[in-house]
Amino acid sequence: MKTELICVGTELLLGNILNTNAKYLAEKCAELGLSLYYQTVVGDNDARLAEMIKAAFERSDVVIFTGGLGPTSDDITKEVVSETFGLPLVYDEKAADDLTKRLKRLGVSITENNFKQAYVPEGSVVLYNHNGTAPGILIEKNGKIAILLPGPPKEMQPMFEEYCVPFFKECSGLEIDSVMVKLIGIGESSAASKIEDIIEKNTNPTVAPYAKQSQVHLRITARAESSEACRALIDPVLAEIKARLGEYIYTTDAEKDIEDVVYELLKEKNLTITTAESCTGGLLAGKIINVSGASDVYKEGFVTYSDEAKMKDLGVSKETLEKFSAVSSQCAEEMARGAAKAAGADVSVVTTGIAGPEGGSEENPVGTVYIGVYYDGQTMVKRYSFGNNRQMVRDAACVRALDMVRRAII
Amino acid sequence: MKTELICVGTELLLGNILNTNAKYLAEKCAELGLSLYYQTVVGDNDARLAEMIKAAFERSDVVIFTGGLGPTSDDITKEVVSETFGLPLVYDEKAADDLTKRLKRLGVSITENNFKQAYVPEGSVVLYNHNGTAPGILIEKNGKIAILLPGPPKEMQPMFEEYCVPFFKECSGLEIDSVMVKLIGIGESSAASKIEDIIEKNTNPTVAPYAKQSQVHLRITARAESSEACRALIDPVLAEIKARLGEYIYTTDAEKDIEDVVYELLKEKNLTITTAESCTGGLLAGKIINVSGASDVYKEGFVTYSDEAKMKDLGVSKETLEKFSAVSSQCAEEMARGAAKAAGADVSVVTTGIAGPEGGSEENPVGTVYIGVYYDGQTMVKRYSFGNNRQMVRDAACVRALDMVRRAII
Repeated sequence: MKTELICVGTELLLGNILNTNAKYLAEKCAELGLSLYYQTVVGDNDARLAEMIKAAFERSDVVIFTGGLGPTSDDITKEVVSETFGLPLVYDEKAADDLTKRLKRLGVSITENNFKQAYVPEGSVVLYNHNGTAPGILIEKNGKIAILLPGPPKEMQPMFEEYCVPFFKECSGLEIDSVMVKLIGIGESSAASKIEDIIEKNTNPTVAPYAKQSQVHLRITARAESSEACRALIDPVLAEIKARLGEYIYTTDAEKDIEDVVYELLKEKNLTITTAESCTGGLLAGKIINVSGASDVYKEGFVTYSDEAKMKDLGVSKETLEKFSAVSSQCAEEMARGAAKAAGADVSVVTTGIAGPEGGSEENPVGTVYIGVYYDGQTMVKRYSFGNNRQMVRDAACVRALDMVRRAII
Repeated sequence: MKTELICVGTELLLGNILNTNAKYLAEKCAELGLSLYYQTVVGDNDARLAEMIKAAFERSDVVIFTGGLGPTSDDITKEVVSETFGLPLVYDEKAADDLTKRLKRLGVSITENNFKQAYVPEGSVVLYNHNGTAPGILIEKNGKIAILLPGPPKEMQPMFEEYCVPFFKECSGLEIDSVMVKLIGIGESSAASKIEDIIEKNTNPTVAPYAKQSQVHLRITARAESSEACRALIDPVLAEIKARLGEYIYTTDAEKDIEDVVYELLKEKNLTITTAESCTGGLLAGKIINVSGASDVYKEGFVTYSDEAKMKDLGVSKETLEKFSAVSSQCAEEMARGAAKAAGADVSVVTTGIAGPEGGSEENPVGTVYIGVYYDGQTMVKRYSFGNNRQMVRDAACVRALDMVRRAII
């Protein structure tokens, strides 16, 4: 079905906020097999919104709206869409009841304004909102579908999952299933070129690459009459991708990031980990600790930015620092052994490098990072070059460091 | 001038990437006094793009395009826009020369394809690209302005700054100047309500609030015949905002974040700082170290996630942990004193709290964070409640911790 997206909100036109709703819904449409041809942003303006809606329904079957469902007079999406469809707004008891309960629970006084949100276009399906006051709306009329969702992502996303995903699956009469293959250590174009024939050959399942920060994700999506049939379509393609790119794949679970995978491996093997960071300066520890339950595997870490701290906290030798400098394989190795010992941890992961913009040399240009991993009496050190953007060097170093841990303990 | 934005790229329609260009350009348009009424995303499709361009020029004076200027046959923006304006594409020697030099420098072999990028619409202004191969283009014809910019933000943003900002300033015959007032410790709606009359009363300069993660930014923008005249308009409004919200303002420099301000204060006062983190787990150190030159003020820090680490590395007493637990004012105080001592630093900043989702109690629900700052023999501890999103709790804690340091040493 030809689909388009209309995001309503002056805050988007002023650049006050980033339109993350557009990306989320675009990705969902791709997953659901809806052909998204246009995304538009308009302000809280009756005439321009009405004109936009008219153009949208002339060229598309499905129009998904976000924003403009609030209680103020600026919020006009529902009113303008209802008028376009020729549907009067009617009072919805349950929406009003939900609203009253929510505002009471929050201790917010209820004004007449609020009940504007309890009016819905006659004959529409009300998408009750469990995370906010504005209900969403689904209208099917004359072969066209309009879906109105609230603007805040925390309300919009669960509402889309709860009501719209099953709705579109039912529309197509097909189940949709997808697997996300996540890779580290290979670039998007290299990964794509290694499976170019798979991407081009397959239409069900489809294979789509997504470039992420220091990672590549491949989504395999199948449509079929049942989940089992979807999996039967996906499995051989997944197997072929694994055969070609297996060494880079750290998970096929869309919900998991590399730190989750490392955490689970550590927990499963009953291991503890510590970090000692120079150029990543705490970010690597931050990633590990961001996994809920991290305290099971992580007790302490070190941010050893100066040479003195590397000696004092980790026992790196003065000779090593003088002879090879802190940005060296030797230093990374001593940091890794020293960190594991100082923290009494089974595994350690350490970084030392030059995030820039200053500090580069011919031998170690900006972006050079040594990553060391200690485990089971062995230390492995690798040298990376991560370009010259300070923030990106550090992000890339964290991702590669976690992947080195994964490969070491797996 | 009525303005709109057309972002060309199938990767946006598939949700592969977030449209950060739209936010950047929307903010710039607001700054430059251009009235942005529409943002549209279309794919790499001739017919749909041509139709979109036609509609855009019917309703707007200025249309800014991003994307679709690359060397492949998918890249069609320049071709379709030129056709719309009835301008033939002509070979631009300098663009071709730039291209050849850049690809040689990168050691990339040059194919005939690449020279597609050296063709520009006849009579247009070529926006030479110092950060990539695709030149931008500016067309003025029949009272309409088309600006074509490359898709990658690292190419698009400097190009917009170099060519488009001066162009629009000249168009308006006015200088535009703005000041960004950055606040921590007050919410967007409280801040806005304290200066509601200023926001409503002023049209030149305008005052616009932007909600950022744990911060509020207010942009004051003036238009006048000279920079001095702009400043003369801005200064009294800035003074009034400072009078009402001064305690929350940490800078009026758009380029600076709280960690930059803290770094400069430390450097100016010749102080060193250390961190000891429980719930923020390294992120606070990461923020400080992300300032280029941080090694002048930051030598080492501690990630003390477990009680044992707090005792061993920072000398927190067993009695304190048993009596008050790690999430307590007493523990934060001992961490702050202990960290400064252990690192030999003049200032320390520490966090201990519950980022969630587990670990909350009635006394200390999820989101409770104690932040301690030690400086000059004094320790200050504050208790915060940051809600229940793990990532947001930790980000908010970092921002507030840095602001506490700023207030302590200023």
